[in-house]
Amino acid sequence: MPSETSSSYKSVFAARRRRLADKLGGPALIISGLARARNYRANRYPFRAESHFLYFVGKALEGAALVVRPDGSILYAEPPDPEEALWTGPQPTLEQLATELGLEVRPIDELRLEEPTATLPSADAETAFLQSDLLGRDIVPASGPELEGIDLALADAVIELRLVHDHAALTEMRAAAAVTERAHRAGMRATRPGLREAAIVGAMDAEIVGAGCTHAYQPIVTREGEVLHDERHHRLLEAGDLLLADVGAESPGGWASDVTRTWPVSGQYSGSQRAVYEVVLASQLAAIDAVRPGVRYRDVHRVAGKKLLEGLVALGLFHGDVEELYARGAAALFFPHGIGHLLGLDVHDLEDLGDRAGYAPGRARSQNFGDRYLRLDRDLVSGMVVTIEPGYYRIPYLLERPEEVGELESALDRRVLAELADVRGIRIEDDVLVTDTGAEVLTGSIPKAPADVEAAMRAA
Amino acid sequence: MPSETSSSYKSVFAARRRRLADKLGGPALIISGLARARNYRANRYPFRAESHFLYFVGKALEGAALVVRPDGSILYAEPPDPEEALWTGPQPTLEQLATELGLEVRPIDELRLEEPTATLPSADAETAFLQSDLLGRDIVPASGPELEGIDLALADAVIELRLVHDHAALTEMRAAAAVTERAHRAGMRATRPGLREAAIVGAMDAEIVGAGCTHAYQPIVTREGEVLHDERHHRLLEAGDLLLADVGAESPGGWASDVTRTWPVSGQYSGSQRAVYEVVLASQLAAIDAVRPGVRYRDVHRVAGKKLLEGLVALGLFHGDVEELYARGAAALFFPHGIGHLLGLDVHDLEDLGDRAGYAPGRARSQNFGDRYLRLDRDLVSGMVVTIEPGYYRIPYLLERPEEVGELESALDRRVLAELADVRGIRIEDDVLVTDTGAEVLTGSIPKAPADVEAAMRAA
Repeated sequence: MPSETSSSYKSVFAARRRRLADKLGGPALIISGLARARNYRANRYPFRAESHFLYFVGKALEGAALVVRPDGSILYAEPPDPEEALWTGPQPTLEQLATELGLEVRPIDELRLEEPTATLPSADAETAFLQSDLLGRDIVPASGPELEGIDLALADAVIELRLVHDHAALTEMRAAAAVTERAHRAGMRATRPGLREAAIVGAMDAEIVGAGCTHAYQPIVTREGEVLHDERHHRLLEAGDLLLADVGAESPGGWASDVTRTWPVSGQYSGSQRAVYEVVLASQLAAIDAVRPGVRYRDVHRVAGKKLLEGLVALGLFHGDVEELYARGAAALFFPHGIGHLLGLDVHDLEDLGDRAGYAPGRARSQNFGDRYLRLDRDLVSGMVVTIEPGYYRIPYLLERPEEVGELESALDRRVLAELADVRGIRIEDDVLVTDTGAEVLTGSIPKAPADVEAAMRAA
Repeated sequence: MPSETSSSYKSVFAARRRRLADKLGGPALIISGLARARNYRANRYPFRAESHFLYFVGKALEGAALVVRPDGSILYAEPPDPEEALWTGPQPTLEQLATELGLEVRPIDELRLEEPTATLPSADAETAFLQSDLLGRDIVPASGPELEGIDLALADAVIELRLVHDHAALTEMRAAAAVTERAHRAGMRATRPGLREAAIVGAMDAEIVGAGCTHAYQPIVTREGEVLHDERHHRLLEAGDLLLADVGAESPGGWASDVTRTWPVSGQYSGSQRAVYEVVLASQLAAIDAVRPGVRYRDVHRVAGKKLLEGLVALGLFHGDVEELYARGAAALFFPHGIGHLLGLDVHDLEDLGDRAGYAPGRARSQNFGDRYLRLDRDLVSGMVVTIEPGYYRIPYLLERPEEVGELESALDRRVLAELADVRGIRIEDDVLVTDTGAEVLTGSIPKAPADVEAAMRAA
């Protein structure tokens, strides 16, 4: 991971700032943010700088602000407090920071914004307060799909830059993927009946934290794989369970990986588990195969859904024609989420800008159940990174309510569903770089084929 | 750790609420808080409820509010959202919650506060917004020592309750201490030259996370022990280093432990390291010995400082009379922080209420360098838990600046200081319960004597 301050490394950020400035008519304020208090002010979560700041500065400086202007960028930062040296050790002076970052650096209390200045709001209320102070106008914290009072020209310029990753970004994402591989292998090795899910999280943590990384998102490590966002880890593992682990490292520079594997607690998939696993795997491989420049991401979603259905029909879970079943929403009954999302500095990259990043101009979310959770619908471009993550989930909320199953009931074979009772949730997820000619799986060396997973679980 | 919902467990919280109601003339709103956004709204830090809420309710429910009234308490909570079941699994209904917690529970949108209602502000700006909404008046986020606009009667009632721990609280703190012991032993076993500090954090994490706990605070695991709040973990360990590890687990119920050990990377303390370590250990044991009901905590701080100086004089680092040197601030030159603090649901318990909890009425922080970082100055009472954590730090900011050393220069033997060059920072910290007759060390089974630490490092 690039932590050196070589001139080539500095030039990456200079180039990004220059490209942003070229797209803007006026100045922009890119804030680094403030650490969040946990239970009291001095007990803080680990500081994580805003992604836009990391993109243009490359260093997680708390309480700093970058001003990008057509005639050059200036970083405003807190000068080191001598008394703080007692607690945190000597901090770099602003001059040292300027040398390290290859940027003009001034004390933040010299920051004056006299012309109208664009900004992107933080999701954190206190950081948004600070933005309001610096800008002299109210900044509403970013709150998801709505983009209240946002500077659209700045948002679009940043989206255009961050959608397509440069070499330095890919270097960081490959490094994060390598740590994620170690974490998943450690999780596979550590799994056995009688342990709690938390013990597997701990084993994976040791690799991530031990490599100087953090989690890019709250890990999901669960025997209840059908609960899509299950962040609890308190259950005991039993020999017949599948364990679904959605765990990704974030590099020290802030770049994410996002990987799911599903492995058998006993070390060996049962017949039914292996059968469904192979169906999900075929769906994932077909979707990855579909990734190339110019392809619409929603179509990749559909390839995955149809391939999944094809497998479920072959297993006898559905009866009927795949295309027709797909049109009736059969895939979404077992795979209700989207095939994936953008990946970058955020695990859902640029999601602070709502669907403006994920959806191409003129496109909007479908209200169709099978598509409405799709976070991305752009034509793929070389240099984008997306996740590809189909799944199969036996969700009581969907399968046990006639209003959800609807007319699909006649096509669904509940006897076969009963035979697949030991399959609660399977997801297989990789990080995929769109290349000039197709796709490269950044996380491809993490065991995925059933035999490879079983072998990794036996490894010493 | 009590996760059962037995009637005895429920009665603990009922008793705490009743005791609070008895102390208040009117209603109080105790809020649970909101999860903090990390880089975008949907990517959140693990939710941690406000400590006051955990104390009176016992369950980390996001976005809930407890109203304590003299005639009974009501919990207001979000009813489960059926569509959320798809993502987070079935959530308990409010009726189930009422049964589980032994409390009347109503939907939060029925919350109406028509009489003046006291509250304690969250440190989180967004949670404070929610408090403002519910109360119909501005609540300023808690920001440390200042207690702007705080309801003092409620603060004092809560302080009185939380200062002295009941049986259930001590059960949780003992459980947290047991996990912390496993973490420190794992850290000692994992340490060897050539690893990064982060690898040791990872090994300790695996125990804490693997037990279903979290960190009560950001871990400090550093070869630069003289940097008091060093949260970086990027350095390589060398054979001659000491590793200072200040790491404590928080139980699932939210109760903290807080332990520091300092061990030699090579597995064996050098002569100089062992000599200074024994001095710090003697200081710590003397301070623990001084803990008993009725003793003023500031005096425990002084016992520790004088015992430390006694040892440093014996080593020849200072020349002169211990009492006289102490009066001149010699102890603080190597041990500039306080001997400890309150421990409970917060690692600095009740620090959201500033010094109002830590300092007895009529007492305030000294401006004296040796005392000004002391977070606690009360007369000890049976049932309090405090940390006892003296240290020895070779801090360039203090030792290399004539304005800090002052007239102590003539008493300081810099030749001896040079001989102790491989000792950068040593801290030894335990969690100590004040009992009716003295003290009980809750973390006493964590290896501490040099031979025990060395043996724990050799353990398989």
